[in-house]
Amino acid sequence: MAKSPALQSNVGVDYVVVYRYSTADKKAAENTFASLIARLSSVGLETEVRTGDNHSLLIFLRMASEEHMLGEVYRSRVRDWIHGVRTSQPASDTKASLEEDPLIEAERLRIIYQLITNPENEGGAGITPKKGEWENVESVFALHDHVYNKEWIKKWSTQWLLQPEDLDDIRNRMGSKVAIYFAFTQSYFMFLLFPAVIGLGAWALLGHFSPTYAVLASLWSVVFTEYWKHQEHDLAIRWGVRGVTNIDTSRREFRPVKEATDPVTGERQQIFPATTRLQRQILVVPFTIAAVVILGSMIASCFAIEIFISEVYTGPFKGYLVFLPTVLLTTGLPMLTGFLTTLATRLTDYENYETEAQHEQALTSKVFVLNFLTSYLAICLTAFVYVPFGSIVVPYLNVFSIIVRPFASKEEQLHASSKPSHFAINPDRLRKQFIYFTVTAQIVNFAMEVVVPYLKRQGFLKFKQIQSQRAKSGGGAGPFVGADDSPEEKEFLARVRNEAELTVYDVYDDLREMVVQFGYLTMFSVIWPLAPVSFLINNWIELRADAIKICVEMQRPTPWRADSIGPWLDALSFLTWFGSLTMSALVYMFSNDGLGPDGNPSEIKGWGLLLAVFFSEHIYLFARWGVSTAIAKIDSPGRQKVRRDRFLTRQRYFEESLAHTRQLPAVSEGMSTASVTREMLEEQARQGSLTTATSQDRFWSRQRGWKESVQVGRGLIERSLPDEKDVKAAKKEL
Amino acid sequence: MAKSPALQSNVGVDYVVVYRYSTADKKAAENTFASLIARLSSVGLETEVRTGDNHSLLIFLRMASEEHMLGEVYRSRVRDWIHGVRTSQPASDTKASLEEDPLIEAERLRIIYQLITNPENEGGAGITPKKGEWENVESVFALHDHVYNKEWIKKWSTQWLLQPEDLDDIRNRMGSKVAIYFAFTQSYFMFLLFPAVIGLGAWALLGHFSPTYAVLASLWSVVFTEYWKHQEHDLAIRWGVRGVTNIDTSRREFRPVKEATDPVTGERQQIFPATTRLQRQILVVPFTIAAVVILGSMIASCFAIEIFISEVYTGPFKGYLVFLPTVLLTTGLPMLTGFLTTLATRLTDYENYETEAQHEQALTSKVFVLNFLTSYLAICLTAFVYVPFGSIVVPYLNVFSIIVRPFASKEEQLHASSKPSHFAINPDRLRKQFIYFTVTAQIVNFAMEVVVPYLKRQGFLKFKQIQSQRAKSGGGAGPFVGADDSPEEKEFLARVRNEAELTVYDVYDDLREMVVQFGYLTMFSVIWPLAPVSFLINNWIELRADAIKICVEMQRPTPWRADSIGPWLDALSFLTWFGSLTMSALVYMFSNDGLGPDGNPSEIKGWGLLLAVFFSEHIYLFARWGVSTAIAKIDSPGRQKVRRDRFLTRQRYFEESLAHTRQLPAVSEGMSTASVTREMLEEQARQGSLTTATSQDRFWSRQRGWKESVQVGRGLIERSLPDEKDVKAAKKEL
Repeated sequence: MAKSPALQSNVGVDYVVVYRYSTADKKAAENTFASLIARLSSVGLETEVRTGDNHSLLIFLRMASEEHMLGEVYRSRVRDWIHGVRTSQPASDTKASLEEDPLIEAERLRIIYQLITNPENEGGAGITPKKGEWENVESVFALHDHVYNKEWIKKWSTQWLLQPEDLDDIRNRMGSKVAIYFAFTQSYFMFLLFPAVIGLGAWALLGHFSPTYAVLASLWSVVFTEYWKHQEHDLAIRWGVRGVTNIDTSRREFRPVKEATDPVTGERQQIFPATTRLQRQILVVPFTIAAVVILGSMIASCFAIEIFISEVYTGPFKGYLVFLPTVLLTTGLPMLTGFLTTLATRLTDYENYETEAQHEQALTSKVFVLNFLTSYLAICLTAFVYVPFGSIVVPYLNVFSIIVRPFASKEEQLHASSKPSHFAINPDRLRKQFIYFTVTAQIVNFAMEVVVPYLKRQGFLKFKQIQSQRAKSGGGAGPFVGADDSPEEKEFLARVRNEAELTVYDVYDDLREMVVQFGYLTMFSVIWPLAPVSFLINNWIELRADAIKICVEMQRPTPWRADSIGPWLDALSFLTWFGSLTMSALVYMFSNDGLGPDGNPSEIKGWGLLLAVFFSEHIYLFARWGVSTAIAKIDSPGRQKVRRDRFLTRQRYFEESLAHTRQLPAVSEGMSTASVTREMLEEQARQGSLTTATSQDRFWSRQRGWKESVQVGRGLIERSLPDEKDVKAAKKEL
Repeated sequence: MAKSPALQSNVGVDYVVVYRYSTADKKAAENTFASLIARLSSVGLETEVRTGDNHSLLIFLRMASEEHMLGEVYRSRVRDWIHGVRTSQPASDTKASLEEDPLIEAERLRIIYQLITNPENEGGAGITPKKGEWENVESVFALHDHVYNKEWIKKWSTQWLLQPEDLDDIRNRMGSKVAIYFAFTQSYFMFLLFPAVIGLGAWALLGHFSPTYAVLASLWSVVFTEYWKHQEHDLAIRWGVRGVTNIDTSRREFRPVKEATDPVTGERQQIFPATTRLQRQILVVPFTIAAVVILGSMIASCFAIEIFISEVYTGPFKGYLVFLPTVLLTTGLPMLTGFLTTLATRLTDYENYETEAQHEQALTSKVFVLNFLTSYLAICLTAFVYVPFGSIVVPYLNVFSIIVRPFASKEEQLHASSKPSHFAINPDRLRKQFIYFTVTAQIVNFAMEVVVPYLKRQGFLKFKQIQSQRAKSGGGAGPFVGADDSPEEKEFLARVRNEAELTVYDVYDDLREMVVQFGYLTMFSVIWPLAPVSFLINNWIELRADAIKICVEMQRPTPWRADSIGPWLDALSFLTWFGSLTMSALVYMFSNDGLGPDGNPSEIKGWGLLLAVFFSEHIYLFARWGVSTAIAKIDSPGRQKVRRDRFLTRQRYFEESLAHTRQLPAVSEGMSTASVTREMLEEQARQGSLTTATSQDRFWSRQRGWKESVQVGRGLIERSLPDEKDVKAAKKEL
């Protein structure tokens, strides 16, 4: 397949627009299509139209003239400079400016994408895929560079570590937003080596719930979070995107209440009162409560059922019934999460933010709450409810006997089981559960993310192949889509039609996955210190799998820019903080296995636990402060570059500004007594002749020039300190 | 005295330098003096010399030419602009620039002061009072503006509230560093109204240790701290000093290890390795421990002695012995604090910072530790040691019987007293102690700060008057200092000699005092809710007393600039945080008076206390986050100004930069089918003639211009969606 010429070249296509017309209203579809083409052409894009799959048209776009492209690049760079993203003003000679700082593919594609999608008043064509007027525009995507993709995957699969150059490469192709995700995952992967080694050691030597491991792992998570902030900053400078988040991209969906002229800048502004938004933001409280209640009760009851069946129930079908809660969870939880995520999105839309950054921030915090609950609640329940209060709570689980009643042959099977004497806490449950989340779930997740879509796609391709063969052989109902393709373009168009079917890649989910994994490590890894080893292996594969996913299963991502992993950074900090609470609690409760002879952690004292948590948290806060202070002092190539640029700019400005002050009369170094005295004598003569000479003039004219001041001063010193001779003379006189 | 012309005018004097020559080495004194005058004159200052008190000379300075002054002002403003303190570049025409932004007195005096003291390579005269070469230069100070001072004091003493204009006035005269202290104290005073009202209510209605009061007071302290940050920012913009702390003033005392060329900027740099500094900074740990041990044992033992004498001891002289610990504390504590402050200063010097800001930061944190211990430790001991553990600890205080043994007439007086049955915890001790710190200590402090120096000075003046009268009458030993003064200058010189004797004002101590007071409020005020009322009254007087102090008892302060209360801001945050711990602990322990029937707080549970503190702290952290987020959204005139300036600058740059891109070929809006088709046909004809035409060229030449694309697209839509007619026709055919 790789030898096919269709994969070797994109015949200069910059973007493909998929226009899917409804079969209902032909005239309207034709008119919209005509105005779409007119719009695209009006911003300097050349168009070619071909047929697509299922009532769609493929519109191929490329920049009509290279000169126009350069103009757009220059415009974009000036905007960057004004917002402080570029440290120096781009040379006004566009060609020269491009030689100095060549146009990379990601920048070119981003600028063209913005040309297509930006509103008309900002100089774009205003095409908003799937929205409003352009509902029929299904997608706008760039074509994959298959030559590069193949090389990329080949290189990464044979290479143990990623180099900075590999990340630069991604940034050049996919933009810094995708690149920063890979950089984060790579950095996290490298950092994992430390807890993996420590964890292996702790597992082999220190026994369970080792305080040493807990302290080191917590400290590591703090160092990693703070170091990543530092590194992110540096990467942003390296990739020239530092501060792009400050260029507020206004949200297309923002609905202002009124328009007004900003009294400050005099601009027309769309206003949405902050108080109204605050009222809407307060809805996040009931949302969070609802999420906690819904997800919490789902997880808690499945958990309770599981305990009841596995540890209390002794009736028949136990072997099968044990899977009941798992089935309930795997079907119910995604449904509930999906519902709550939709709710979160709606809520964030309702909060009506003006910029994309604010919107993303608000949405991420809600999504984080949901993820936090689905990922960590079960383990928290086991550790902090089941183990300490198990013997009190479990007997009440008899309410679930109603579920198993149909299976219980004899009443006594139910009742016998509810006797507390039968019940003993299973100390291995916590570890097993944690291993499930850190190993099994990761593998399942990988399968769902990479393998299943791959199989689905292969199946789909097969289906299409069969369909088209049938169409060719005349057996099909409709005409075969590629029937009219010119033989030369056949293969190329088939490939584009395939890419048009692919889903859009979003780094958001991949990042979320990494953050959740980091949470397991920083919050619970003391339960099973081999977790970092599992994560290390997982992430090595994950990095490569994500690369393959982007190349094979997704449309080429639009190369957006980003200078940070954004709101997830706060999530990382939050997790390290929460980890300082859970880790210390776990160590206090479970070290020496923490369980009394009755399987009951009898020695756990409320004040002891609180004290452990309290100290741990404050040590954490102090350590974080120390680590961030220390890391802030580390120099880096990016920071050096910024310093150099700033120094040079300052120097230039200072010299420019002060050039003319040098022409001011020189500092009166040569104000010799002679010349000054003469001038001053003249002045004084004039002044003296006036009876109105002020006391001020008289005060300042007593000593003429600094040499006279020196003489007077010497005289005063002389007089006040009699010479030894004088003293002797005085003595003689007496 | 106010009518005296000597107080009405400073005869144009900008600065006075006091040069005190040693009586030992006359020649050296004369030479240094000569070179001092030469240096001062070389930077454009005019000099006049007069005799001063006790072997000193008064050197009067003023700028020799106004043009030179303007040059210096311009130079200073350009530096500000380059460092981002001014938002716009000063007009290169200095006169015009001054009309736009007039030179205020504080700026003038600051620039002249810097001219005198800056090193020679920075364009100054390099005079460093009391240091190195210039050890004999005792002080450099500006003369008070007595007309303004009189008006100032009169205005403030008759005015209930200070207006922003009053603060502007201080800034214009004394510079923003002093002004920001007054602004802080005024803002704090206004904010105190709220806890004063709440406190009064709590005291009258809610009883002791009211949780309501504690929550409101803690919340208030958070709001105040966060609001002050916001207001400080705004004031800094209003006074045009935002970011002055970024202009690093290099410390004269900095001793580099080596010199090297910065690889980044190419500047020569003096280097002191950060690792060496870190090693020295670690000394802060033993320093803190030493401070805790020394001050702690001093305070604790005085405290113990006091308890022993007042509550255990029953022997004779009890009425006098009770004062023993107070005497010990009032003599011992200042000595120890003085010693530790010196140590802190030495330590900070040893840490060898490059800039004044870093040095101040490091010193303040150490001073804050000392103040924290001396101010709050005693109360903490009473609340958290004496009350809960009193009945256990007090019997051991018998060791102190050795102190009173000489006074005890009978052995049994000592032993009888040590029986635990005699001892009961005094629940009023905590309140009495707190009232002492918040009322008595404040009054004593005020007396020490304002009244005592005033009396001392009056006595000194009287002494000098008698001395000079004796000298006049010929009875004295030496010649009378003012003997040679010209009659016209007599009064003026006498005044200057007085001002030369005054001490230098430093806002540092006044700020520290306010921060310590804030600490009492936020940490302990639940003990006695009338504390804020006391502080309110105290601070009304304090503000005016400080004004009088500056005018009467201090030399006119050099008008330094500052955009913040600096490191004290962190101290405020720390105190609010610590307050969330102590307030909740106090409320938990003492509400309902917390004491069992035996005077022992029997119901205090360790886990209960910890839980209260734990929750309180997290509520505090959450509230602080919420409050700071909310306050950050408040708009203010200063922020509006910055936004406007930034908007205008951006607009200007954008227009300048894009002026020439408009000359680029216009976007191909008019790329009509006709013209393009012709061009393209020609092109295609040429291409077609070449057999080497690439597949790319062929791909893009299928549709010529966008109108053809539209036609093709319409055709494709038409074909794929058969008209209803066609459908009917097709059906008929079947």
